[in-house]
Amino acid sequence: MIRPGSTLGILGGGQLGRMMAMAAADLGLRTHIYAPERNSPAFDVAAEHTVAAYEDEAALVRFAKAVDVVTYEFENVPAATAAILGAHAPLAPNAHALAVSQDRLMEKTFVAELGIATAPFAAVAGETDLVGALERIGRPAVLKTRRFGYDGKGQVMIRPDTDPAEAFAAIGRAPAILEGFVPFEREVSVVAARTAAGAFAAYDLCANEHRHHILATTRIPAGVSRGTEEAAFEIARSIAEALDYVGVLAVELFLLTGEDGERLVVNEIAPRVHNSGHWTLGGAVTSQFEQHVRAICGWPLGATGRLGRVEMQNLIGDDAHAWEQVLAEPGAHLHLYGKAEARPGRKMGHVTRVYPESD
Amino acid sequence: MIRPGSTLGILGGGQLGRMMAMAAADLGLRTHIYAPERNSPAFDVAAEHTVAAYEDEAALVRFAKAVDVVTYEFENVPAATAAILGAHAPLAPNAHALAVSQDRLMEKTFVAELGIATAPFAAVAGETDLVGALERIGRPAVLKTRRFGYDGKGQVMIRPDTDPAEAFAAIGRAPAILEGFVPFEREVSVVAARTAAGAFAAYDLCANEHRHHILATTRIPAGVSRGTEEAAFEIARSIAEALDYVGVLAVELFLLTGEDGERLVVNEIAPRVHNSGHWTLGGAVTSQFEQHVRAICGWPLGATGRLGRVEMQNLIGDDAHAWEQVLAEPGAHLHLYGKAEARPGRKMGHVTRVYPESD
Repeated sequence: MIRPGSTLGILGGGQLGRMMAMAAADLGLRTHIYAPERNSPAFDVAAEHTVAAYEDEAALVRFAKAVDVVTYEFENVPAATAAILGAHAPLAPNAHALAVSQDRLMEKTFVAELGIATAPFAAVAGETDLVGALERIGRPAVLKTRRFGYDGKGQVMIRPDTDPAEAFAAIGRAPAILEGFVPFEREVSVVAARTAAGAFAAYDLCANEHRHHILATTRIPAGVSRGTEEAAFEIARSIAEALDYVGVLAVELFLLTGEDGERLVVNEIAPRVHNSGHWTLGGAVTSQFEQHVRAICGWPLGATGRLGRVEMQNLIGDDAHAWEQVLAEPGAHLHLYGKAEARPGRKMGHVTRVYPESD
Repeated sequence: MIRPGSTLGILGGGQLGRMMAMAAADLGLRTHIYAPERNSPAFDVAAEHTVAAYEDEAALVRFAKAVDVVTYEFENVPAATAAILGAHAPLAPNAHALAVSQDRLMEKTFVAELGIATAPFAAVAGETDLVGALERIGRPAVLKTRRFGYDGKGQVMIRPDTDPAEAFAAIGRAPAILEGFVPFEREVSVVAARTAAGAFAAYDLCANEHRHHILATTRIPAGVSRGTEEAAFEIARSIAEALDYVGVLAVELFLLTGEDGERLVVNEIAPRVHNSGHWTLGGAVTSQFEQHVRAICGWPLGATGRLGRVEMQNLIGDDAHAWEQVLAEPGAHLHLYGKAEARPGRKMGHVTRVYPESD
């Protein structure tokens, strides 16, 4: 078990690392951020930082030896990086969770093998595979690179009139997965935590709205049946147990509604704190950032109760210029990430609004 | 007005500066801590820090020029230090608030001149004054140094059999003030904020319990009548207005109860965030640390509503060893200040517990 006064190493210097570092400091931990970019937002709230590439073995070893536990804010940590770090310090979540969530094909296969519903999918190594896969899965379908996709990048929709060759070219002819289109009604997510001792706790199901493939708003409660919410928790628990997971994870799900009621389909696993869990900062008894720190330190999980009906709104690009209005809004919680330039599509901050449950 | 991305300079590197720095970062500000002690707890969450004496003019000028606004976490900032800083950057709260609250005689005189009740008091420059003052004020009384007293230091009780000369020697024969003993039932405090534009907002009255002259517990609500609470707010507002105060301030009061009901007597003004306001972090919509940042940046004040019935318990010295038990307690919020050594009397952290209002 990690004790207060120990040092938490965080790979990645963005807003997730930043909020994690503040949660760790509030619990008496020191933090050390490792990131390749100078002026990373998380550096401003950390005791130490290292600016180095994720491939810089010497820097990684020095970093791992200087801290008591290593975690990360993004799932695309290279396997070699994870292996180097893991040889010199405890790494949580573990390298297997990274490997599974980095590769859409491994991820879908892993989930399906747990008996949990996913979109129909097929591996696409080349154009020939794609034609066969389209015959089995049908159109519309989505062709996605196996690796390094996020926020809608590295994917293309295949409609009835789409030329498979062009679609494959559009994703750079990279190893891919074809996924059947899921006629979902809504996107929801579970943010949950698991400890090495097997304790598990989930926050209430989140209803997410995206704009241009980027999360725009999260609302809690999600407005689903109690049974659906429990099913989502069980999905997250099965995944966390199968990965021997330690820390906070998010499972993104599609909610389908039909004559037979609500149904959930897993879209993606994020082995880290997640944007759809930002509402917990000020909207739940324990924030996801504190919960992650508790889990990776081997501490008891915190209470996940909600403080009311909650809405989280991302401030993307120029949205952040509205900071003064948000500050003037009674009870709105403004969080800004300290990024200098408000580029389009860049997550600059978020606002959390907590309302009485009955409103 | 200060904009996000600006740098907040904080004089003092203890837990108050640390919590202030985190609140500032959450609002997109960078922070720069100035403190004489290496390894100051606040350095761990700040973008920049300067280790230098409060008398180091060159370092102070460099610091003030590097930031957009300067504030402080303790009232004993030397007047010369405040003057140097104020010449190169906006200083909030202002130097006058520091001067008044640094000197118990100036403070009591200032409060009394506002028509607000204080303990009976008299200036004591030497032993002769003390004898005369004791005749006017009577015994028991408390002899306090005018300057640099805190947590019970620099004061001595004068009982019926106390020798005045010995009492004066006990406080080092320093310029002093004699205060009549106030037979108070309880100690309460108001934590409030004022902006340069004159906006004012107070948190609910806090009931404070001390152990060995150090704050042990704060409970909210304080259990006083509505009229008394409003009177306390008006006292804080009068003081803040008379000082042209900008930022969070705390007014410590004695609550007396007699045949004619409840009565308040001002004990002391703290021109800064205050230990009795720590409950607002997790217990109120806006924490006192965020409120202070909002006020000194010229931003609108945040909502001061309470999230329930709240208890704040200081973790002093060895109390901090109970961190594991606190983490295991559902809904308890643990805050540790990152101090290496748990010396007796040292504030190591605090716990906030929020209960439903009706319990």
